[in-house]
Amino acid sequence: MSNPTSTAPTDTADAYIATWNETDAARRQAAIARVWAEGGSYRDPLMTSDGHAGIDAMVAGVQGRFAGFVMKRTSKVDSHNGSLRFGWSLGPASGPAVVEGVDFGTLGADGRLASIVGFIDKMPTA
Amino acid sequence: MSNPTSTAPTDTADAYIATWNETDAARRQAAIARVWAEGGSYRDPLMTSDGHAGIDAMVAGVQGRFAGFVMKRTSKVDSHNGSLRFGWSLGPASGPAVVEGVDFGTLGADGRLASIVGFIDKMPTA
Repeated sequence: MSNPTSTAPTDTADAYIATWNETDAARRQAAIARVWAEGGSYRDPLMTSDGHAGIDAMVAGVQGRFAGFVMKRTSKVDSHNGSLRFGWSLGPASGPAVVEGVDFGTLGADGRLASIVGFIDKMPTA
Repeated sequence: MSNPTSTAPTDTADAYIATWNETDAARRQAAIARVWAEGGSYRDPLMTSDGHAGIDAMVAGVQGRFAGFVMKRTSKVDSHNGSLRFGWSLGPASGPAVVEGVDFGTLGADGRLASIVGFIDKMPTA
């Protein structure tokens, strides 16, 4: 690629989403280590986690509770000044999404995710 | 109020938006000092600023270039874990908005804004 920096935030977002869909524990842990900074922090209205092991445990827990669900990116990746934003959905591989939201992320000096803060736009009522 | 913490992020967002609409320099500077932490940082795709004086200079510059424009909040204020999100528009006091976007913010320990990162959803083409 002649200009890798222009596509890097999109690649990072897609690599991040792929970690939510990787159910093989060893491959998921390796993918999380590639995309997240060591001290990375995840925050959404329902869950928080910190560091590679904490993030991996959170993702594994969601995969266990929502087997077969797939996370998909639903918007372009918008980025500037080391921050990025993209929409996503979570639900069965086919059929309408169950949960939809927006993730706001920040990148560390090496390009890996330093933080993700997620906001929910659609969620089933209890 | 019986539960001030539940409304604080909305109050903070509205006080922040009010700084963009305050054209009296002394009142605007005082309002910025109330709503922003000393080391607060603002980032959007077009502008960056840091600290009370830097943020005030940025806001004053926008007011000078777009006289009569008003910033309005266009969504509820969504908040968790010290972060907040809200939609906004900028344009003439009456008539359709010219620019629309979403601001993501983080709050410092004293409840003032530590950072705002803005993303643009609608902007006129040159």
